[in-house]
Amino acid sequence: MFLDLYQKVRDEKNSILCVGLDVVMQKFLKRDMGVEILEFCLDVVEKTSDYACAYKPNSQFILFDLNLNQLRKLNQAIHDKGCISILDHKLGDIGSTNLSALHWISEAGFDAFTLSPFAGNILETTARAHRRGLGVFVLTLMSNPESSWIQKESMIGGVPLYLEIAQKVREGGSDGVVVGATDNTTTEDIRKIREKIGEDRVFLCPGVGAQGGDPEKIIKAAGPNILINVSRTIVDSVNQQEKAKQFQEQFNKHR
Amino acid sequence: MFLDLYQKVRDEKNSILCVGLDVVMQKFLKRDMGVEILEFCLDVVEKTSDYACAYKPNSQFILFDLNLNQLRKLNQAIHDKGCISILDHKLGDIGSTNLSALHWISEAGFDAFTLSPFAGNILETTARAHRRGLGVFVLTLMSNPESSWIQKESMIGGVPLYLEIAQKVREGGSDGVVVGATDNTTTEDIRKIREKIGEDRVFLCPGVGAQGGDPEKIIKAAGPNILINVSRTIVDSVNQQEKAKQFQEQFNKHR
Repeated sequence: MFLDLYQKVRDEKNSILCVGLDVVMQKFLKRDMGVEILEFCLDVVEKTSDYACAYKPNSQFILFDLNLNQLRKLNQAIHDKGCISILDHKLGDIGSTNLSALHWISEAGFDAFTLSPFAGNILETTARAHRRGLGVFVLTLMSNPESSWIQKESMIGGVPLYLEIAQKVREGGSDGVVVGATDNTTTEDIRKIREKIGEDRVFLCPGVGAQGGDPEKIIKAAGPNILINVSRTIVDSVNQQEKAKQFQEQFNKHR
Repeated sequence: MFLDLYQKVRDEKNSILCVGLDVVMQKFLKRDMGVEILEFCLDVVEKTSDYACAYKPNSQFILFDLNLNQLRKLNQAIHDKGCISILDHKLGDIGSTNLSALHWISEAGFDAFTLSPFAGNILETTARAHRRGLGVFVLTLMSNPESSWIQKESMIGGVPLYLEIAQKVREGGSDGVVVGATDNTTTEDIRKIREKIGEDRVFLCPGVGAQGGDPEKIIKAAGPNILINVSRTIVDSVNQQEKAKQFQEQFNKHR
């Protein structure tokens, strides 16, 4: 069960920090992008893993130039440090295609991945992921304000779409929800999502750091089973170690 | 403009067939998956390009093990045959992350890609894609029946979500819509989408072949600017060339 893994690592590390491996390609010399990106990610893991519970590599930054062996090396390094690896993949295809993604995500050694609910197959994909030992985080309320018209203003039988998604997360046994920590999300939104999914699912909350989200608000409303993701503010820093330590401590103050 | 490219290739090739490069990994020997997958895809292109307007590699099948140079080789082969290459990526992230994807999709030499509307940023992503010369197809009504609750039953001010998406495609200048050709989509759905997006956008319709969709229905209702995608029925066939030819002819009968 992903929840057990999460709680074990969170308590061992005394951290709810998830470091997003958002790698800006302009930094690299383009001799061999795959090698350079892998080295950069391994260096971030080396410097920050004392303070992090999880890492979240994003497919849009790494998948075009890291091959399967390089993804395995990255996940091995994350696991060697006792941390969790979540592929921010936003998978959202039909069943037969999702099966291919699940095969590769599992082969590459990730512990969990993010799923977009747009293709509607939350239950099917969660069941198939669990058969491969993979946890599933379903995009529920995103951190960017442009998402409001579809996620908050769409209604199904009087219920806003993001709460209907939370309901499917509950029913389908998905392991968690992705809920932005930015101003796009109110305390009331977080409480309603927690009520729908129950206490035994994990909130994964991006939007703190570069996007300006308030971690205190989201930690207090979502409760103990939570990961707060910080990407650019750590990864782009000249002192990644110190930044990660600061975020760990800041988040722990509010728990 | 993507529309000009599409119309030129469609008329030169006398085909509205798009071949989906859905590569089933169990076929391969796993010596070097990237090399084997690339060879398989190049072979499909070689055998079917006389009958196809476009190819649609899907990220969930190819992105975990083809690197940038291999993606470039695939796109070069597709272009050498005078065809279009559309990455079925279902991109759906926040702006800064989508920029990374756009960079890589462009670097790899694709002509267009598919975008999921779930993150809400159709207008922003389309404008940014156009600056890089990339066409954008927005998922509007998918081919799998599990998608109905979110795409057809969600309403915004009395309008079903898929028609609100079609409206944003019109306003945002996106180049086309992805609309499943399966029973999930009615003739009336197709007509309403075409009315919203206008005649100058391209329908990309998966669901014919393995998923059992009726090409006649969708060609008649959507009009001339259309691509019908067939993946497994061609790619898994022992006679890919003959299958592609049959689909080209069948589709042309209904145009």
